[in-house]
Amino acid sequence: MQNILLTISYDGACYSGWQRQINGRSVQEEIENSLEKLFKQKIRITGASRTDAGVHASGQRAAFFIDQIRIPPDKLPFALNASLPADIAVIKAELAPDGLHPRFSAKQKVYEYAVYNGRVRDPLNNRAWHVKPALDTAKMEEASKYLIGTYDFKTFCASGTDTVNFVRTVYALEFHVNNPLITFTIAGDAFLYNMVRIIAGTLVYAGLGKLDPSDMPSIIESKNRNAAGMTAPPHGLTLIKILY
Amino acid sequence: MQNILLTISYDGACYSGWQRQINGRSVQEEIENSLEKLFKQKIRITGASRTDAGVHASGQRAAFFIDQIRIPPDKLPFALNASLPADIAVIKAELAPDGLHPRFSAKQKVYEYAVYNGRVRDPLNNRAWHVKPALDTAKMEEASKYLIGTYDFKTFCASGTDTVNFVRTVYALEFHVNNPLITFTIAGDAFLYNMVRIIAGTLVYAGLGKLDPSDMPSIIESKNRNAAGMTAPPHGLTLIKILY
Repeated sequence: MQNILLTISYDGACYSGWQRQINGRSVQEEIENSLEKLFKQKIRITGASRTDAGVHASGQRAAFFIDQIRIPPDKLPFALNASLPADIAVIKAELAPDGLHPRFSAKQKVYEYAVYNGRVRDPLNNRAWHVKPALDTAKMEEASKYLIGTYDFKTFCASGTDTVNFVRTVYALEFHVNNPLITFTIAGDAFLYNMVRIIAGTLVYAGLGKLDPSDMPSIIESKNRNAAGMTAPPHGLTLIKILY
Repeated sequence: MQNILLTISYDGACYSGWQRQINGRSVQEEIENSLEKLFKQKIRITGASRTDAGVHASGQRAAFFIDQIRIPPDKLPFALNASLPADIAVIKAELAPDGLHPRFSAKQKVYEYAVYNGRVRDPLNNRAWHVKPALDTAKMEEASKYLIGTYDFKTFCASGTDTVNFVRTVYALEFHVNNPLITFTIAGDAFLYNMVRIIAGTLVYAGLGKLDPSDMPSIIESKNRNAAGMTAPPHGLTLIKILY
């Protein structure tokens, strides 16, 4: 058996998320269909991150086991992309060690969240959250500094998960202001359900003056979802990369 | 009567072009429908540029006459965007002199063409032409210099138009290489049918070594469409702005 690791890019706008489900098109299903066409057998892939409906990826990872692969892995992207829709592409395929699990072996994940801060919405910046009032980006950046480190991030976790351990480490959170586009990249060991989107909503609240950067330590310590800002919409979020 | 000038942004992927037509959704039709909802009367708008199916715009212009406008023009974008689809937005509305015609009064138009020069296609760079072989961007830029100036550009005009005068002026053609993304902006007094896309195809041919930059003067002088490169696909093209 060979363990094949894929790197995948997609625009999530038309999908109900990464994970295969009864109702709605999923990215996983599209890739599994493409693999089935190529290998003439049902193949189940395991994704590194179960991105929500509308979330994009430039570096999602997924893996599958196969008895013997008839084509060199580096030719696999071209073979698969020929039958994948235009908004999904396999950008890399490689042989991985048998023990590598795309989700559990991940050492670090990097996400990007984009905000389009203009009075009028822009159809050409459609992978960004449109926030109309002018944001104080210095306040946003100041607030973001408090999130770097190892904390119990329960405040930034959506309810409805069976998670018991909310301790995560944020290695880096970097701002890029290129008005009217404001993006931040966040790198961490792992993220709780909706964590990046709740962080985005909270930083936007700081930029709007709805909360002060100095409130951040008590917001984190509260472990109360209501202390944080709104959950930012999915279409501003992109999974950038996963490191093993 | 008041002459209202709109500035419009759209992702053209889902449209059969700017111009209203019997079969297929057009950007013009969507905006006219939105105006009709707002003003409770049929309004016909005139666009500055009849962009083809799949072509995008960040600065298309269109104008219409109306007896009396009940809301300040600067509030018009918000009122119209509320009923426009997500891939179209009116980004500005202003009172224009009665004599201003969106197409005939245009002094300068600026387009951008984007090429995604990577081995594998990228769904997050979907407003760019995917060219797989590595392009020699220095050759492309060298070839582009020959196009700046006033020439008979018949070579770069698709057949099937009733144009008789092919003389146009290209004021500027600037390259931006940010691998794997290669874009060029072109500014001119006006453009022939498919001119920017044929120029894009020709510059890509120069980048592929299918023609030499020094061939450009004779290609222009030939006034023969077959001497130029292919017509680049529409989805890499964006109408950036129109100056009056």
